[in-house]
Amino acid sequence: MFIGAQVSLYPLCDRFAEVILAAVAALDPYRDRLRIETDDISTLLVGPPENLFPAMQDLFVAPARTGVHTVLQATVSRGCPGEPDDPVCRSPVLERQPAADADRAIAEALERLPGDLVETGVSAAAQIALYPLGTTEHMADIGACIGFLRRSGAYDRPKNFCTRLRADAGRVFPVMAQAFLGFGAGHGHAVLTATVSANSPSGAV
Amino acid sequence: MFIGAQVSLYPLCDRFAEVILAAVAALDPYRDRLRIETDDISTLLVGPPENLFPAMQDLFVAPARTGVHTVLQATVSRGCPGEPDDPVCRSPVLERQPAADADRAIAEALERLPGDLVETGVSAAAQIALYPLGTTEHMADIGACIGFLRRSGAYDRPKNFCTRLRADAGRVFPVMAQAFLGFGAGHGHAVLTATVSANSPSGAV
Repeated sequence: MFIGAQVSLYPLCDRFAEVILAAVAALDPYRDRLRIETDDISTLLVGPPENLFPAMQDLFVAPARTGVHTVLQATVSRGCPGEPDDPVCRSPVLERQPAADADRAIAEALERLPGDLVETGVSAAAQIALYPLGTTEHMADIGACIGFLRRSGAYDRPKNFCTRLRADAGRVFPVMAQAFLGFGAGHGHAVLTATVSANSPSGAV
Repeated sequence: MFIGAQVSLYPLCDRFAEVILAAVAALDPYRDRLRIETDDISTLLVGPPENLFPAMQDLFVAPARTGVHTVLQATVSRGCPGEPDDPVCRSPVLERQPAADADRAIAEALERLPGDLVETGVSAAAQIALYPLGTTEHMADIGACIGFLRRSGAYDRPKNFCTRLRADAGRVFPVMAQAFLGFGAGHGHAVLTATVSANSPSGAV
């Protein structure tokens, strides 16, 4: 199984380069557990979900906490048949198979949300979309995932092509992880895209 | 058929709000041909591809031309079974069926690239990914799409989960349009994600 993300961070300020470099230091504790490669468009993170989603959360929260309007954009992928199996990705989390029954898959994803979610103090607005690939049943999987999001404590409202979330970043990222892992075939190819925003002067509309 | 995009624009500067509002004025000529709705995370554009991609190009080029580091992030979707048929989306372009044969689909996509591409003077780095949904043949469609990108005059290099492009913005957006329209079932559900960047101080790495 290959699992990873292409992640971009956009601090909307003149000193964006300095803010991005400071935020990337938040990835240092993960460097022995994730493969990390950066170019001018995005940073590739490869590794198991239990490190991948906390690393993205820490990358986002570091600049957002300073009050600057910050957006993180991520494309997370698992099981792409075009990617090699990579030992760094191995994880018992990836051995689990989501339940085929939608109600059960939703209940299990809710159970897997950590009970002790830690508030970061960063209020986040987000929109996410799940793309289960290589299956003719993708709309059923997406429907079940939206059912989970509605009950996740982070749900805001539907939008065309995606679902809006609003919660502390300490809830948004764990909810994203369960949305990504809990629906579609466990060993199948699936992609989740996410845009997470803090400190927008437009606020919620 | 429903076709549209969720688009976000990130000018990396202190006066980002002013720059975004000025850029959104570049959409004015399209307002009778696209449905446009904005919130604090993204702008929804709904309408036929012959307006959708030029509108995204104009939205990106307006701030990028001023020299500010600008990133446009877009999720473009067609044929989602969860969306209603919308008369604003009707277009002869959407009646075409891509060839099932990969070589022929690539040749046809190359032929459909306008011969008179207009340079904008904005050099763009981009990464895009195509997700054909509701099919077990998605990897073949993605492979054909990458074959087209390699010959599109905008190809840079492969990355994990996406393909990097580099060209004048006046080539990047038409190439994106053909990558989106020329592969996968013509009336099927497909999503393309794109990140387009100009004026990065990191340059190409």
